[in-house]
Formats: sequence, C-alpha cells, structure tokens
Amino acid sequence: MVDVAALVAGAREGAPRAVARLISLVEGASPQLREVMAALAPHCGNAYVVGLTGSPGVGKSTTTSALVTAYRAQGRRVGVLAVDPSSPFSGGALLGDRVRMGEHASDPGVYIRSMATRGHLGGLAWAAPQAIRVLDAAGCDVVLVETVGVGQSEVEIAAQADTSVVLLAPGMGDGIQAAKAGILEIGDAYVVNKADRDGAGATVRELNHMLGLGEARRPGDWRPPVVKAVAARGEGVEEMVAALDKHRGWMEEHGVLAERRAARAAKEIENIALTALRERMGELRGGKRLDALAARVVEGSLDPYAAADALVEGVTEG
Amino acid sequence: MVDVAALVAGAREGAPRAVARLISLVEGASPQLREVMAALAPHCGNAYVVGLTGSPGVGKSTTTSALVTAYRAQGRRVGVLAVDPSSPFSGGALLGDRVRMGEHASDPGVYIRSMATRGHLGGLAWAAPQAIRVLDAAGCDVVLVETVGVGQSEVEIAAQADTSVVLLAPGMGDGIQAAKAGILEIGDAYVVNKADRDGAGATVRELNHMLGLGEARRPGDWRPPVVKAVAARGEGVEEMVAALDKHRGWMEEHGVLAERRAARAAKEIENIALTALRERMGELRGGKRLDALAARVVEGSLDPYAAADALVEGVTEG
Repeated sequence: MVDVAALVAGAREGAPRAVARLISLVEGASPQLREVMAALAPHCGNAYVVGLTGSPGVGKSTTTSALVTAYRAQGRRVGVLAVDPSSPFSGGALLGDRVRMGEHASDPGVYIRSMATRGHLGGLAWAAPQAIRVLDAAGCDVVLVETVGVGQSEVEIAAQADTSVVLLAPGMGDGIQAAKAGILEIGDAYVVNKADRDGAGATVRELNHMLGLGEARRPGDWRPPVVKAVAARGEGVEEMVAALDKHRGWMEEHGVLAERRAARAAKEIENIALTALRERMGELRGGKRLDALAARVVEGSLDPYAAADALVEGVTEG
Repeated sequence: MVDVAALVAGAREGAPRAVARLISLVEGASPQLREVMAALAPHCGNAYVVGLTGSPGVGKSTTTSALVTAYRAQGRRVGVLAVDPSSPFSGGALLGDRVRMGEHASDPGVYIRSMATRGHLGGLAWAAPQAIRVLDAAGCDVVLVETVGVGQSEVEIAAQADTSVVLLAPGMGDGIQAAKAGILEIGDAYVVNKADRDGAGATVRELNHMLGLGEARRPGDWRPPVVKAVAARGEGVEEMVAALDKHRGWMEEHGVLAERRAARAAKEIENIALTALRERMGELRGGKRLDALAARVVEGSLDPYAAADALVEGVTEG
C-alpha cells in the first residue's frame, strides 16, 4: 500500500514525483482512490481551472505553453492537463506535440500531465476532475486543461473548467463547425490563433457576429471576448491572460464561480454515486439478477421499464 | 389519456397513424410510456435490426432506400428509423435528405420515422430502443436504423443493432477516419458506396487490409465483408442483402444473436434503472441533499467519494 499521507505532504511541498504518483493513483482508479481523495479534499478549491479546446491544428499546445510562460512570469504555479482523445476501443492516447511543452519541463513551478480518455463515456468525466484535484491540492494557482475538440470532449471540458477558452484558426471553416458543435455556447473566451494568416480578420468578425446572434443578453451577462493571437510568437498572450482575469473577476462579482463549482461538484458526486449503484446492480444475486431480467425482456414476458423497477428494488432494498 | 391498447391493436393491424402515435408517446417520454412498453412487450422480438452509419455524404439515405426496395420485393415489412444528430444545445434535428425516402412514403408495408437525438447523452440511447420496439411490435420484419456517424452515435447505433453496417465512399479519407473512430470494430459489414468513383478499389483494399490487421481471429469468428455498391443505381444492393442474411445466419448459428439481444436488453434495463435512481437522488430531502453535499465538497470538508456514499445511502435507505 502506498503511504498516501506522505504523498500528499510531498505534493504540497512541491515534489513533482509525488504529484505524478497521486495522479497515477486517481487515474488508475487505485483501490486507494478514496483514501487519496479524502486526503486531498482539505487542500482543494484554490486553483483556477481554465479549459482550452479547439480542432487539431489550431495551436492548442503552443497557446497553452505561452499561457504557462505568462502565468509563470507572474510567479503563479501552473498545472497542465493535456487530455488526448483516444479510440473508445484502443485506450491509447494520440500524443504528439506534447514536446512543445518541453521548455517548461524543468520548471519546478509547472506540472505537466498527459491523460488519455479511456472509453467514450466516463473517461474524461471521471479521471480529469480527480487529476485537477491533485494539481489543485499540490498548490497550483492555475490549472490549464487542454483537449482536442472532437465529439463531446469540448463540452465535457467546459463542464470541468471555471473558464472555457475555444481556440480557432483562420481559414479552417471553423465558423460553420463552431455553430454545429455548439462551441458558441461553451466558450467564455475565444482565441483566433495564427492571426498572421489570411482570413484572421474575417474569422474574428464572423465569430463576433455569431456571438452577437445568440439569445438576447440581459444587462450584466458575460459577453465572450474574441482575442487575436500568434501564440508561437507570444503575440496576444497578454490579452488572453487579461481576458481570463476579466472573466474570473466577472464570475466572482456575480457569484457565477461559486455556482459553477457547486454544479460541477454535484455532477461529480452524482456520477460517482451512479457508478456505485451500477456496480451494485451488477452484483445483485451473484451477478445473475440483471441477466435474468434481460432474458425475460428478450422473450417478451417483461418490458424494460418493469425490469428496471425490479432492478432498482433489488438495489434499494438490499 | 390515450387508449394504449387500442393504439397497439391498431399498430398490429398495420395502421400507420397508430404506429406514429406510439413512437411519439415513447419518444416524448409520455406519462403513459410504461403502459405503452408493457403493452408492446409480448409482441416484440421478431424484427431484425440493422444499423447503418457513415459520414455525411456517403449516401446513407440512398442506401437505406435501396435496401427498403429490396426487402419489400421479398414481401417483408420494413421500418426505417432515421436518427439525426443535433447539437446538444439546440435540440433541433438536422433533417435533410429524408425526401429521398419519399418513394416509400405511400407503401403501407414501410414505416419511416425521423428522430432527433436530444442532447448528447441519453438521446439516442433512450429513445431509439423504444421506437425500435414499436416498429417491432407493429410487425416489421426488418428495422433499419440510419444515423450520421458523428461522435459516438455510430457506436451507440452498433449497440442497438443486430447487425451494424458501416458505409464509406471513395476518396473521403475515410480510411484514416475509420481507424480513428474505431468503426473498424463496430462494423459487421462494410459498404463502399459510390463505387463508380475513382479510388473505390483502393478504399476496398485499404478496408480489407485494415480489417485483416485486427487481432487474430479464432476459427469461426465473423469476418466482416466489404461490399461495393452504387446504391443510387441499385448496384450492389443484392450483395448487401446477401451479406446481411449471411451475418444473421452466422449469428443464429453461433448463438450471437441471442447474446447481443440479451446484452442490449441488460444495458437498456440498467439505463432506465439508473435514470430512476438519478431522479431519486435529485429528490432527496426536497432536492436539497445533493446541493448540500456539493457545497461541502466545494469548501473541502468532504471529498466527492464520501459525498457519493452519503447520496447512495440516502437513496437506498429511503
């Protein structure tokens, strides 16, 4: 058994190996997961969590790296969680340009972790919040969660973050994609990266136009800013940080930060509870109860709702 | 209140309006949903469910329509469920080429229904199985479930179908996409449609190659066939039907059909039960229990796992 208390103490003192070990424990759903989470709880709640999402090729890693540099210059400790989508089947992460983060690898004020989303459901939803908690408890002032915007991952990231940043690049047909994927509803800020390319102005205009088309905002509502950047040259990074600071300030002023964190915690608790209940269902009558009910549904002697009632009864009445 | 027994009787006699009304009831999660499902149960289990998925532009509707024609020529009754992906936010369906199915609209042996997937989770998983049951009980010999392969929808469709068909078209970079999306693991048969286009042969070869690269098959394992077709001209449709018949025969011979249906029913029951339990969680202490636990997690006096334990306890001990 791992000495969890010692690991947490080590992480709190800034030992990168202790942080890495803790993330491995929570990511791997170790039997000590509960012990780890209980030990982390009192130290959580300080980190500002920023989600960064966008299609492949918009420069997410470069932008993340530039943000790390900017926050480090302010003396803040930064955690980076790079979530890589993977096949729901292979379980393998499509790593790649993580190397661009290399410049920060030797900085003791920066923790960088890549994470695969194992399976299409649950992967990100389960592992990421726990890993964020580790980085939070380890004293990170800011946690940047970077993910490729494919399928639902950007929506999930938005649900995990205090502030969600959507990255785009000129001339990638992102405008139409944005509308389709619903990213117009998840971004608290938009960054048009590679803004030295043709069409940057048009992309910014299109985005601003579409953001303005949304349902009528009430006075005081947040209007997501659109920032132009060339992250590879550090251009626009100051503006990005300013936009994030502004959003954080707005959220604090309007009670939105507390609201978002409470909603996130509620969702997380609910997910963990449902997983526990699903396990109990699977274990009913030595794992035979659900199979027996399914057989009756297949043969038509029971409908799935009546079967579900029987299953719920089994779980809730021991 | 709707007279469910009369509707089910009407549907069994082939009244299209009764079928449509029943689907609306189950799709809209009507208060009479349970009554409907109970009334349908004894009449379910006869339909052969075929899922068709593929990227936009591969000709899914055309292929579905061609399959309907082929099955109708055999005198079989056919149901078509066209599942349209929608933004998790808008709730609106991106309908479109449903009109291509128009030629079957006046055929009393064909039921066609479009369905939006409301919300990224649950939409397809919930509504589609119930709608399939309606079509099954209404006497359809074959139910074709067609969906655009975006995000996880193709995986969900594969989970609902007895046989999953993945459609591709030449020169769409589908090969690489296929590998990424994991569709190589969900197809029981592959159709390279628009095979009169350049590159059809290469797509077929690439697919066959990749299908061969999968983990070593045991003797007797199903090897998904790759069929070339030009559905708009009816070419290759006979081969598709033959491939489907062959797969169905193989599944019956090896007990796989019964296995799949049992697994599907088990998953469905579990999902319904979990939804019921989630509702109970939300209702605990007048809806305040989860909020109170979330507040404690946010302030760090409780970890999410301990909070989940408390929530589960509340649900299972009344």
